[in-house]
Amino acid sequence: MSDLDRALAAADVGQGESLERLFALLKIPSVSTDPAYKTGCREAADWLKRDLAALGFSAALRETPGHPVVLATRPKPGAPHVLFYGHYDVQPVDPLDKWETPPFEPRLATLKDGRQAVVARGASDDKGQVITFVEACRAWIAASGDLPVGVTVLLEGEEECGSINLPAFLEEAKSELGADVALVCDTAMWAAGRPAITSSLRGLVYEEITVRAADRDLHSGLYGGAARNPLHVAADIVAGLHDADGRVTLPGFYDGVIETPDDVREQWRALGLDADAFLKPIGLSEPAGERDRMIIEQIQSRPTCDVNGLWGGYTGAGAKTVIPAEAHAKISFRLVGDQDPAKVKQAFRAYARSRLPADCEIAFEGHKGSRAIQLPFDSPALAKARTALADEWGVEAVTIGSGGSIPVVGDFKRLLGLDTLLIGFALDDDRIHSPNEKYDLDSFRRGTRSWVRILAALAG
Amino acid sequence: MSDLDRALAAADVGQGESLERLFALLKIPSVSTDPAYKTGCREAADWLKRDLAALGFSAALRETPGHPVVLATRPKPGAPHVLFYGHYDVQPVDPLDKWETPPFEPRLATLKDGRQAVVARGASDDKGQVITFVEACRAWIAASGDLPVGVTVLLEGEEECGSINLPAFLEEAKSELGADVALVCDTAMWAAGRPAITSSLRGLVYEEITVRAADRDLHSGLYGGAARNPLHVAADIVAGLHDADGRVTLPGFYDGVIETPDDVREQWRALGLDADAFLKPIGLSEPAGERDRMIIEQIQSRPTCDVNGLWGGYTGAGAKTVIPAEAHAKISFRLVGDQDPAKVKQAFRAYARSRLPADCEIAFEGHKGSRAIQLPFDSPALAKARTALADEWGVEAVTIGSGGSIPVVGDFKRLLGLDTLLIGFALDDDRIHSPNEKYDLDSFRRGTRSWVRILAALAG
Repeated sequence: MSDLDRALAAADVGQGESLERLFALLKIPSVSTDPAYKTGCREAADWLKRDLAALGFSAALRETPGHPVVLATRPKPGAPHVLFYGHYDVQPVDPLDKWETPPFEPRLATLKDGRQAVVARGASDDKGQVITFVEACRAWIAASGDLPVGVTVLLEGEEECGSINLPAFLEEAKSELGADVALVCDTAMWAAGRPAITSSLRGLVYEEITVRAADRDLHSGLYGGAARNPLHVAADIVAGLHDADGRVTLPGFYDGVIETPDDVREQWRALGLDADAFLKPIGLSEPAGERDRMIIEQIQSRPTCDVNGLWGGYTGAGAKTVIPAEAHAKISFRLVGDQDPAKVKQAFRAYARSRLPADCEIAFEGHKGSRAIQLPFDSPALAKARTALADEWGVEAVTIGSGGSIPVVGDFKRLLGLDTLLIGFALDDDRIHSPNEKYDLDSFRRGTRSWVRILAALAG
Repeated sequence: MSDLDRALAAADVGQGESLERLFALLKIPSVSTDPAYKTGCREAADWLKRDLAALGFSAALRETPGHPVVLATRPKPGAPHVLFYGHYDVQPVDPLDKWETPPFEPRLATLKDGRQAVVARGASDDKGQVITFVEACRAWIAASGDLPVGVTVLLEGEEECGSINLPAFLEEAKSELGADVALVCDTAMWAAGRPAITSSLRGLVYEEITVRAADRDLHSGLYGGAARNPLHVAADIVAGLHDADGRVTLPGFYDGVIETPDDVREQWRALGLDADAFLKPIGLSEPAGERDRMIIEQIQSRPTCDVNGLWGGYTGAGAKTVIPAEAHAKISFRLVGDQDPAKVKQAFRAYARSRLPADCEIAFEGHKGSRAIQLPFDSPALAKARTALADEWGVEAVTIGSGGSIPVVGDFKRLLGLDTLLIGFALDDDRIHSPNEKYDLDSFRRGTRSWVRILAALAG
């Protein structure tokens, strides 16, 4: 029996306890964007620090102006070194009433098609994925007393609220973060049973606007017809962001977008991701994006704009005849290719101002933006990971783009000079960011085994 | 000293205690639209019943499927009889953080220009106004042991949530509601020191919509570009309700709107209600309604549309990249002339459906609608009230239209055959429906004295 086989066996034997540890972490409510959960974030960080220390890592909480970073290292002189990144923070849980069971009380559920899954906020994004890597390390240590490579684990607490303090931390801790390659476990498989390595990521611009008109809320009976209603103004700004063909209307928005080569488009077409496959599982039937684009383009290689929140006036039960003083919207843009986040932000702000009628003011709050990322296809580490994944899953890994944004990948390249392998075991039906988030037990078990294999492969 | 002078003197002498009673009523949180305040509503009704019973009224709470009606009668055989209407329920208090002091802890404040005012939710709308009438009755009884006319007091608890149960109650209690004229105290003066009698009221159609797309909230990174966003759809529906000239776009919306005669428009013009006078006090400068209409038309004689609430997606602190499953809006229309509420509702629903893209559903919830009201200018009761108001304020009362909707006035005509005198002492700067609602002490004091005079005038 090889060291690898022994480590895989240890992962299998330890699966029950691995799951218990995941449940313990999922019980800690670490919603980073909401100040009410500050204590929960620190508690989750502390739990991970202690768990990594128990595995022989030199582990510590490192303070930032926001939530702390967990930094843990287990060097192995003479062997390659990997920097693993994940995040312990989770998305808010609203709407809470749509959860079948409380979001921070993890449970094992059997899905309609017989799959078993862990249900809880963060089960997939990203606590479940983080724990696949930690448990892989544990299996190696249990089986052979050591890891095949040196490992540094960096777990962030602000991924879900813009990673605002991470770049400064990376610069500050640069000397401790030396590695040959970075590993990130925060992405999805192509489909159940079909692993994927993500080679491109969309960038992000996130803006919050507040439109103000009168200096107070007004009675629509007394003032309606004469007083400006900021809700109408916000709705007009939102409604004008797309044209009838689904394209974003901001001047210059498509500058820097790179057309996908025809041969790549053909490969994508062969994957057969049509409306039935992609939209039907979420109750939709027609792609809503740019006309004449395949769905896979709409979600991976084309830039987009979505309103993520819109609110103002009376939102309670019953009727209230108010003209509110303020209206609010959260609006985000996904970027691709060489689109410049700063220019998109400028174009959006100029556009919004251009639609303001008399007596209205607009205030902008910008969250951290990021450029899109394209990873090299030809690195040796990528080839080793592909082999390891094929060994575990019995099928070639797909190399795909992701519609999401993981700014840390750009930061690793820019600040640490590191390329990143994005390998994750989430599935599209994991309901991440939604009620009843889940992580397949199979993702958890074989994800752990995949990391056991990848760690061995990267040592060679 | 005449009976009238004695009653006026009694009102003046009792002013301190009158104010104490108003404060006691204002302390009771009777928000009718929010089920959380059900007990508060009943408590306010009970307080008023007991107070009227103490004045020798035969008073009772009358149950409805919603909040109870207070009905109290003090007959005077051989004398004219009046039916007084007011409401004890109040608007919700949100946004609570904009209140300088808690909304249900009434206080006396000195305004910047030296005026004194009672500050609390309901101070003006409508508890303060109701109490002016009750205290006028008390003054008459204190001064002469009796009222000049027979009085029935009907106080509703659902005015702020559509008066949904009132028409059925009026029909049921019809035999107890006989009177020569109805009095309603829920309107404003023309300006501080200048009393008004309101002779027209706009009608109301209030609709709530829910737009649904996917069957769950989605991650905008994974689905953005392909999945329909219901917030965009709701914004498009709202943004399309007005054209560039400020007119409402619904087909047939202006059917039944009656042009104000030129001579009346000239009289209105002479009142000098320009943007400086009307909009500047609320921080605005340009009328936002139909182009080429005077402000007084925009708020009194022209129909309007306002979005009173709009919400969906993530509205908390920070950034969340969600495509929500639902978006919501509350949309109301103010009607004039012969506009038909049922047709406006139909036109709105057809319009909203016509703007739905693929995969979207829309649900409508209609609140009670009402037609606009025009009262006769030539009734003897109106002439008597005008004289009484002139005696109290030393200046002629203005006969104006109101932009608001008071459906009970139409119900009184239709169900009881009664004309209504709408006389109130609120001011435009009372912040009704807004934080820091207030009622001038002068409105309270001279409003009470006005009713003392009007009761005497109506006896003649």
